[in-house]
Amino acid sequence: MLNLQILGSGAATPTLTRGVTAQYLNFNERKILIDCGEGTQLQLRKFKVKFQRIQYIFISHLHGDHYLGLFGLLSSMHLLGRKTKIHIFAPPELEEIMDTQFRLTYVKLNFEIIFHSIKLKEKTLVFEDNSIEVFAFPLKHRIPCYGYLFKEKIKERGIIKEMIEEFDLKIPEIIQFKRGNDVTREDGTVLNHLEFTTHPPKPQSYAFCTDTKYIENLKEIVADVDILYHEATFKHDMLDRAKATFHTTAQQAATLAKNANVKQLILGHFSQRYGETTEIEEEAKATFENTKCVEDGDVFLVN
Amino acid sequence: MLNLQILGSGAATPTLTRGVTAQYLNFNERKILIDCGEGTQLQLRKFKVKFQRIQYIFISHLHGDHYLGLFGLLSSMHLLGRKTKIHIFAPPELEEIMDTQFRLTYVKLNFEIIFHSIKLKEKTLVFEDNSIEVFAFPLKHRIPCYGYLFKEKIKERGIIKEMIEEFDLKIPEIIQFKRGNDVTREDGTVLNHLEFTTHPPKPQSYAFCTDTKYIENLKEIVADVDILYHEATFKHDMLDRAKATFHTTAQQAATLAKNANVKQLILGHFSQRYGETTEIEEEAKATFENTKCVEDGDVFLVN
Repeated sequence: MLNLQILGSGAATPTLTRGVTAQYLNFNERKILIDCGEGTQLQLRKFKVKFQRIQYIFISHLHGDHYLGLFGLLSSMHLLGRKTKIHIFAPPELEEIMDTQFRLTYVKLNFEIIFHSIKLKEKTLVFEDNSIEVFAFPLKHRIPCYGYLFKEKIKERGIIKEMIEEFDLKIPEIIQFKRGNDVTREDGTVLNHLEFTTHPPKPQSYAFCTDTKYIENLKEIVADVDILYHEATFKHDMLDRAKATFHTTAQQAATLAKNANVKQLILGHFSQRYGETTEIEEEAKATFENTKCVEDGDVFLVN
Repeated sequence: MLNLQILGSGAATPTLTRGVTAQYLNFNERKILIDCGEGTQLQLRKFKVKFQRIQYIFISHLHGDHYLGLFGLLSSMHLLGRKTKIHIFAPPELEEIMDTQFRLTYVKLNFEIIFHSIKLKEKTLVFEDNSIEVFAFPLKHRIPCYGYLFKEKIKERGIIKEMIEEFDLKIPEIIQFKRGNDVTREDGTVLNHLEFTTHPPKPQSYAFCTDTKYIENLKEIVADVDILYHEATFKHDMLDRAKATFHTTAQQAATLAKNANVKQLILGHFSQRYGETTEIEEEAKATFENTKCVEDGDVFLVN
């Protein structure tokens, strides 16, 4: 199950109505924080997320509104007794910043940070376990910046229960069927796995893309995802400003969602010039109907 | 006029009810920020302080709850168009942390930071202009930590208006009187300034002391101040814990206030084990009556 909670949906500087970028993703019980702008630890408290359970932190890039909350969060984890290691995936400069800061402020954390340096030119697998895999891919911003694709691994086929009794299936046979293999019995009978199993459920997936210029080819990377989060810093009437600052318009994000055939598009990272987001959402919906502009606290579920 | 607003009154980690340490001091129109824990820029917004006007930032020490909001605040000042220089007074390590962070994240601020390295063994004048002076002094914490004493300079004597007409005083004579000098007229008459002027108003003063063990001798440095802010992380029944962590109890802070003959004691930096502060305040009041436990947003005025 994929459960995504928006912790901060604004751009550049935090305000009293929108925190800066941070998201909490519970994906098959993997507890993931994506970006960590200043104040993220407070947003986690506000939305009652138990932040000591976070195992993985993915940072898109080193603009303040995407990483400055990290030191406070790690510090609070330490002060509140954390002993469990944490994985941080981020551009390599962050490791030097953290080391410098910890060294010069005499901080010795009681838990281990496992730093995974993200510096790559094409989509690359950066994490996997037996349930999910995470790919990083380059975006186009003013400084090195990466998107992340969180994808469930293909599950086993489902066994048709009635067949177990009818054919007196043994456990090794069931395991073979679930893996998509046929079974040859001692008497030479071949049992075709397709007759004993159902297709596995479609793997769930989530793509996170901020901050970036519009990249047409991104459609190949985020193709068919259940949820695409994409920045929409501006409306399309500010296309020039979007290009100049390496950001995307709502219409462009919607075009990507349409071309990539995603199930749902969620937009965030709105410029502070926009008090509310009705027009941004309308602009995107004209191109891709299933679009939502997010607010802090919003939850998105894929079952 | 001295106008102090508490921006954050809690210790260690920010919560939804108490920010971490930060205070905004308007002292004779000098706009001063004292400490800058994570989220300070949001507290400034919340309490409607125009943060672009801040001219001076004083940092006590480099524990996260006292300085981690600095990068976000400076970054927001930059993004919102600041061009005016800012002075930062802090332990020298902060300069290296800032330089490292700005360099590795490609930040080039549009305004100048004038860094004043605070590393000293006794009370030292670290800033003065024509109206106020600021002294730093060492506290006793687990890492180098400093208190700050903000003190108005002695004002000029007040001229007694009736005397101007009666003696047909000229402007140069008035200036001499205000400075406390006598005036000898051309005919040899000596005019005694004491007969023409009133005593200047008592200079106002504010002392900020966090985080620290109880230091008995501090009474000499903070003697007679209008307001003493002192940390009171614990109640006195946790004296051992206070000593072990280099913090102060409410009773100790009150003892200091009493010995130093301050006008008012305000307490903050409460451990999160205390949900409310009634008992802390009662404990302190038993020793020093004019005590208040502060909340975020509280304002203290000295007219």
